[in-house]
Amino acid sequence: MQAEIITIGDEILIGQIVDTNSAWMAQELNMAGISVKQITSVSDDREHILKALDEAKLRADIILITGGLGPTNDDITKKTMCEYFNCKLRFDKAVYEDVKILFESRGYEVTPVNRAQAEVPENCIAIRNKNGTAPGMWFEENNKIFVSMPGVPYEMKGMMTEYVIPQLKKKFKLPAIIHKTILTQGISESFLADLIKEWESSLKEKNIKLAYLPSPSMVKLRLSVSGNDKEKLNAEVDRKIEELKKIISPYIYGYETYGEESETIEKIIGKLLTERNQTLSIAESCTGGYISHLVTKVPGCSIYFEGSFVSYSYGIKEAELNVKLETLQQFGAVSKEVVEQMAKGVRERFKTDYSVAASGIAGPSGGTPEKPVGTIWIAVASKNKIIAEKFQFGNNRERNIHRSAITALNMLRKEILNIKS
Amino acid sequence: MQAEIITIGDEILIGQIVDTNSAWMAQELNMAGISVKQITSVSDDREHILKALDEAKLRADIILITGGLGPTNDDITKKTMCEYFNCKLRFDKAVYEDVKILFESRGYEVTPVNRAQAEVPENCIAIRNKNGTAPGMWFEENNKIFVSMPGVPYEMKGMMTEYVIPQLKKKFKLPAIIHKTILTQGISESFLADLIKEWESSLKEKNIKLAYLPSPSMVKLRLSVSGNDKEKLNAEVDRKIEELKKIISPYIYGYETYGEESETIEKIIGKLLTERNQTLSIAESCTGGYISHLVTKVPGCSIYFEGSFVSYSYGIKEAELNVKLETLQQFGAVSKEVVEQMAKGVRERFKTDYSVAASGIAGPSGGTPEKPVGTIWIAVASKNKIIAEKFQFGNNRERNIHRSAITALNMLRKEILNIKS
Repeated sequence: MQAEIITIGDEILIGQIVDTNSAWMAQELNMAGISVKQITSVSDDREHILKALDEAKLRADIILITGGLGPTNDDITKKTMCEYFNCKLRFDKAVYEDVKILFESRGYEVTPVNRAQAEVPENCIAIRNKNGTAPGMWFEENNKIFVSMPGVPYEMKGMMTEYVIPQLKKKFKLPAIIHKTILTQGISESFLADLIKEWESSLKEKNIKLAYLPSPSMVKLRLSVSGNDKEKLNAEVDRKIEELKKIISPYIYGYETYGEESETIEKIIGKLLTERNQTLSIAESCTGGYISHLVTKVPGCSIYFEGSFVSYSYGIKEAELNVKLETLQQFGAVSKEVVEQMAKGVRERFKTDYSVAASGIAGPSGGTPEKPVGTIWIAVASKNKIIAEKFQFGNNRERNIHRSAITALNMLRKEILNIKS
Repeated sequence: MQAEIITIGDEILIGQIVDTNSAWMAQELNMAGISVKQITSVSDDREHILKALDEAKLRADIILITGGLGPTNDDITKKTMCEYFNCKLRFDKAVYEDVKILFESRGYEVTPVNRAQAEVPENCIAIRNKNGTAPGMWFEENNKIFVSMPGVPYEMKGMMTEYVIPQLKKKFKLPAIIHKTILTQGISESFLADLIKEWESSLKEKNIKLAYLPSPSMVKLRLSVSGNDKEKLNAEVDRKIEELKKIISPYIYGYETYGEESETIEKIIGKLLTERNQTLSIAESCTGGYISHLVTKVPGCSIYFEGSFVSYSYGIKEAELNVKLETLQQFGAVSKEVVEQMAKGVRERFKTDYSVAASGIAGPSGGTPEKPVGTIWIAVASKNKIIAEKFQFGNNRERNIHRSAITALNMLRKEILNIKS
């Protein structure tokens, strides 16, 4: 079963708003076993809308349309749908009652403009709108379904979950679709592709599709498969993930299952420390507070997070973190020795089980031939152990800060779990 | 001049990522005087891509394509472009050198997979990629321009601003378009709209368009006008901005001129402190390092930024920031008294000219009837003065952290400049 999404509105085409509706609708459809063939954004223009409907009908069985249903003159979806199906408007009493109740609850009277919102094309089923005044419209013609909904996200979402998705499930025998995503850190897309080449080609026999989703600090691997037997598909995907683990286990930090909240390294750390009743402190130099920010984005972090130092000067590293001036002078602030002393210093100072420290040259300037921009030292300290590692990132300051922070947190995660790289 | 955007990638169609590239590209094109007719998202599927290119060509003069250019097997844009233009791949030496330099700088050797990224269709001009390994491709055929770029946002953005937009401007006689944006903080969109109603209606006679671009922590006002005489347009817009300043001056912190780097509060603070040879320290509680992160995002911040404390526990506030236990017990950590002592404590400890402190309830839990989630106290201290202010934000943890940080930095900016709100 194939669907298409058409979003109507000039505000999308001038880039004033990001179309978040489509991604949400696509997720809901996929979870119901309906794949999305294409997403198209068109202007508030009669001819353009008609053309888009004609083209979509050739590719898909279900066409979902959002936008252009407001009460003002530039909203032309309703009259364009009438034209498309060659029909007139009818007055829908139930919709009018909804509009009236909504207005009365806000202490307003229904204006003629709002009364007109209760008029819908003769050939449609009106979809009631609990969150606004414009009804949705469900059309069927020649075995194709067209659904027109408002562009306001929560109005559209209400109609999708309460009416559209349940109706589609009733109407069609839909296949099961499984999506699982493996989250990796510390390896680039191309190295990963090299490592898992054979495994990747073994996916074909099970019709499992693989997608690489890289970002500057991590690579996600998404497995997708569809069929009739959901349990069997699930088991097949899980088996493939088990095989993959044997190859790239040290790089995997978490998973994403469709429809569930995604894991992040900072959330995993939070869970681990909470379970173990352990605490964390941080000493940051080049990352300037970003590691702490990631840790404190997680609700409930006050249970395990004590605090951090952000030290940008020699003086503060010395006075607050117990880094020896001679170490700073001999090795420089960006060195194994200093980052280890920073980690040790903050852990002792804040009396925590673990600490993380980062010191490096984020750029764009400050590099030397020996320590070019992008050189970062990271250390993780626990009671009886300090480990430190050097990384060479790129030239972009913001990305270096981001990659250093994610890398530091992943080193901490591995240390807590006692994973060897 | 009409353009279309085609984004390629199953991750968009299954709703795993929101397509933010299109909105950004649409904005850039509009600002250059090119309107966008349609945005289409299609799957990683040869036939589907070919069809989308054919359809787009009928509607637009310029077709911009993103996605599907990675080094892996699921990225099929390059070979599909070859098929579309009926040509072979050639090896591009300059692109290969870029890839090699990027790999060497990170201490890696170029793998065969990456070497293949330097192969581009014979009939295209390769667009070099400063931020990654996949080159862009510029095709011209029958007076239509096709540009294929990576889907990774910062790689695409680099190519757009450095190559694509300048080339399009060179190639076509586009109207002069002036965009200037006024950056405001500390006032909501609706209050702003009320304040500037009259000024807003005076824009019409000059054909200047106004757009409100609100985000959780600030509102941007963008003035746009197009015509032939660039200097005259510029002068007219500047005159309107002067008028606006008389109405909302305390809320304006900076400006954005199209094609120039945007001002941010943290950059302005950096400039002011550098000029005045003054220094800054920070004490953070609810903002968890985010204020420090914003300050240290600015290159060269080590000149004026000494360091920060992130204190999540009473003990650390007391021991490190000289906050008295009785103050904590009497007023609670989220109070005028504590935030003032935090600011005073960190300023004295780090011996800086200014300090900023924030303490609040970021949420989602931890609120009380007296201090609900979103209650934030912010203080700014200088040699002879401490000011503190209370803010009531919303329920969303991440947005509260963000708004608190921006608000704190704007309080500091006003204090340095001695601006009364």
